[in-house]
Amino acid sequence: MEIKTPKGTADSDPVDMVVREKVFGLLKNCFRRHGAVEIDTPVFELKDILTNKYGEDSKLIYDLADQGEGESLALRYDLTVPFARYLACHGLKKMTRFHIAKVYRRDRPYMTRGRFREFYQCDFDIAGDYDMMIPDADCLKLITEIMDALEVENFQIRLSHRKLLDGFFEVCGVPNELLRPITSAVDKLDKTPWETVREEMLAKGLSEESADKIKTFVEIKGNVFETLEQLCSIEELIQNENARSALDEMRILFGYLDTFGVTDCLNFDLSLARGLDYYTGLIFEAIHLDSEQEGVRIGSICGGGRYDKLVGRFGSQDIPSVGFSVGIERILAIKKESYIQQRICTTDAFVVGIGVSIEDRMKLAQLLWESNINAEFAYKKDISGRKQFEQANKKSIPFAVVIGEEELKNNQVSVKDMHASSQIKIDRCDLVPYLLAQLNK
Amino acid sequence: MEIKTPKGTADSDPVDMVVREKVFGLLKNCFRRHGAVEIDTPVFELKDILTNKYGEDSKLIYDLADQGEGESLALRYDLTVPFARYLACHGLKKMTRFHIAKVYRRDRPYMTRGRFREFYQCDFDIAGDYDMMIPDADCLKLITEIMDALEVENFQIRLSHRKLLDGFFEVCGVPNELLRPITSAVDKLDKTPWETVREEMLAKGLSEESADKIKTFVEIKGNVFETLEQLCSIEELIQNENARSALDEMRILFGYLDTFGVTDCLNFDLSLARGLDYYTGLIFEAIHLDSEQEGVRIGSICGGGRYDKLVGRFGSQDIPSVGFSVGIERILAIKKESYIQQRICTTDAFVVGIGVSIEDRMKLAQLLWESNINAEFAYKKDISGRKQFEQANKKSIPFAVVIGEEELKNNQVSVKDMHASSQIKIDRCDLVPYLLAQLNK
Repeated sequence: MEIKTPKGTADSDPVDMVVREKVFGLLKNCFRRHGAVEIDTPVFELKDILTNKYGEDSKLIYDLADQGEGESLALRYDLTVPFARYLACHGLKKMTRFHIAKVYRRDRPYMTRGRFREFYQCDFDIAGDYDMMIPDADCLKLITEIMDALEVENFQIRLSHRKLLDGFFEVCGVPNELLRPITSAVDKLDKTPWETVREEMLAKGLSEESADKIKTFVEIKGNVFETLEQLCSIEELIQNENARSALDEMRILFGYLDTFGVTDCLNFDLSLARGLDYYTGLIFEAIHLDSEQEGVRIGSICGGGRYDKLVGRFGSQDIPSVGFSVGIERILAIKKESYIQQRICTTDAFVVGIGVSIEDRMKLAQLLWESNINAEFAYKKDISGRKQFEQANKKSIPFAVVIGEEELKNNQVSVKDMHASSQIKIDRCDLVPYLLAQLNK
Repeated sequence: MEIKTPKGTADSDPVDMVVREKVFGLLKNCFRRHGAVEIDTPVFELKDILTNKYGEDSKLIYDLADQGEGESLALRYDLTVPFARYLACHGLKKMTRFHIAKVYRRDRPYMTRGRFREFYQCDFDIAGDYDMMIPDADCLKLITEIMDALEVENFQIRLSHRKLLDGFFEVCGVPNELLRPITSAVDKLDKTPWETVREEMLAKGLSEESADKIKTFVEIKGNVFETLEQLCSIEELIQNENARSALDEMRILFGYLDTFGVTDCLNFDLSLARGLDYYTGLIFEAIHLDSEQEGVRIGSICGGGRYDKLVGRFGSQDIPSVGFSVGIERILAIKKESYIQQRICTTDAFVVGIGVSIEDRMKLAQLLWESNINAEFAYKKDISGRKQFEQANKKSIPFAVVIGEEELKNNQVSVKDMHASSQIKIDRCDLVPYLLAQLNK
């Protein structure tokens, strides 16, 4: 029997957990700053809930075995579809929520670049029938705050619009039934050279002429206002209804983002497609530029968009929605070291007994626990003082509370500051207030 | 298509999440007080890792479908086996860790009593070669602290010992190969009448005589010291090696627990068996007495024991271990109301604009966000002041920051205390310090 975690998964050790708790705390703070409440959903959903939502990525869904339950189940692939199902199930008309949970994809793992089969997504979404592009602007503003909070310094948010993409595909002569397959091909452009993507398009039944015209469009990118003007000057695009309405929306969005003062980090990028089927409007991804430039392609660290027709697919009335997902594993792949705090073990005091019984050490630990001071003692009846100090040192525990025959007799204890190596003797009744003051608790 | 969560699972709404975050915080505080660090493991394990660890309960394990990966996977059934696998994988000789995560059991659900198919376990375990019963005493002491922290007032910890059980089964003439099956039958005594359990024993091949003798033993329970003396007075038990060594261990344990001052809530209960195969020594369960007396059988709210031979089954050397799991769903089933805090939405201020543009409201929100004040505004361009105040009220948001034409002209804002209904007008530059002071941030 092989003793390991399944392919594409990893254990999280205490250092990972401290880092993750810190990052989650920062994220929750940002999410709540913009009015979100938290929810959770089961790790698996009825298989039918997930079917036909993810396009070509559907093949990456983990199914559960049929064990005679009468329900076909699958592990959640993202947190967006479960959110739409949640809204429909609970008959909600609007909700701004965040959700931090693991999702599952049978993808090719690339662990050092933060690509796992089990990984956390941290999602923020605004569902509700609001005025055009206001929630969308709120989401993008929030992403800039999250990047600040996580100290991801050199990032860029690439934006596009599904209807703009549809519009220019139409202009390029892409037949209707090929719109989603061609979108999915364009989505691969960040990892794949144009020639390969072109071959995929032709294999899917697109004409060479259409494919070559698509190339001229997907190369358009840059500053949001300039790119918007450039696109608005393309007559055949403006004649297309989808493209024109998308460009109108983008103009409104960029105005709001200008009000929020966050247009500098934006890039209007026509090669952005987003693979998932459910997007209907604005789409975006945040990229860490430094790692791009260093040739470490970790992919997007945050992505999302608008999906106005997803909730309606669960028998409920449509609820226009927009949101995004922060890929914490990828951010940790580039930033983990900077989040590591000094102390992983949070024990405040190690009880050291010299020439006294285990019960004497237990009573002292009990005294500290009572006052919510994190305390340990050696789980050995007979152990030298030296070995006990070694244990405290090994875990970087800041204080040792020492009790010997002398202290026991006089109802005293000695407190040793393990960093300063200084030691003082105090009355037992002064121990808790003294330590609490030292620990700033 | 049916729109629901899978059988035995439930969504967690924002109230659930606030309660859970509070309870997890209290638990983590307790776990860290006793020196534990946190870990996590994947939600699924290689199927072989879980095989032959849980006895008859193995049939409740969720398998993943074979999708051609070459690995057979199953959802984790508890956090103990993954911990043992973790120790073996990482070559650790000792670790005191906690782990808070969901586990999966294809059991008959009983949602109102907190029995789900997907539920959280909160585990604390001490692995390492330490002196007899010292880590065990630490675990039991910690459970009393957890019950205090969670304000579970009328609880009892029932204790027994696997070797004592083995010993008295031997005395009762249970053949060796029936030891685990009979243990598993006795384990059902808390939910099942004796006659039914007896039938199961006979069906498993036990003689009527043995079964009837078992009955006289499993009825023994009570105060730990008295029960210990009662058992030690049974000559045939003392003659049995397993029973004698178990009773010796219990005597040492009760001494330590006396030192910790926690023997009052203990009950030495010979009907306690614990279903899982891996226990080798002390076993225990915490019961909420009030709900037992009220006839609401929610089962144990915490359970655990010693498992000295589990890590060794993963090809590593044996690491003696003891620990327990807190069943938070069951505690919430009886205590949830008492953990609910007043505010679920944590928004501090709602920006209200009257006769000003959406951009003016956005700029004001931006000012608040910059200073880490949680702020919302209505996502509508044209909306009356009344409707905006209504939104703030609905979410119990404590402050409204109001901007009208007058305020805009004079570079001022009005701050309305939504509870007191009082309102003051201040300079815009004073807004952030004023709100921070009011919010005690």
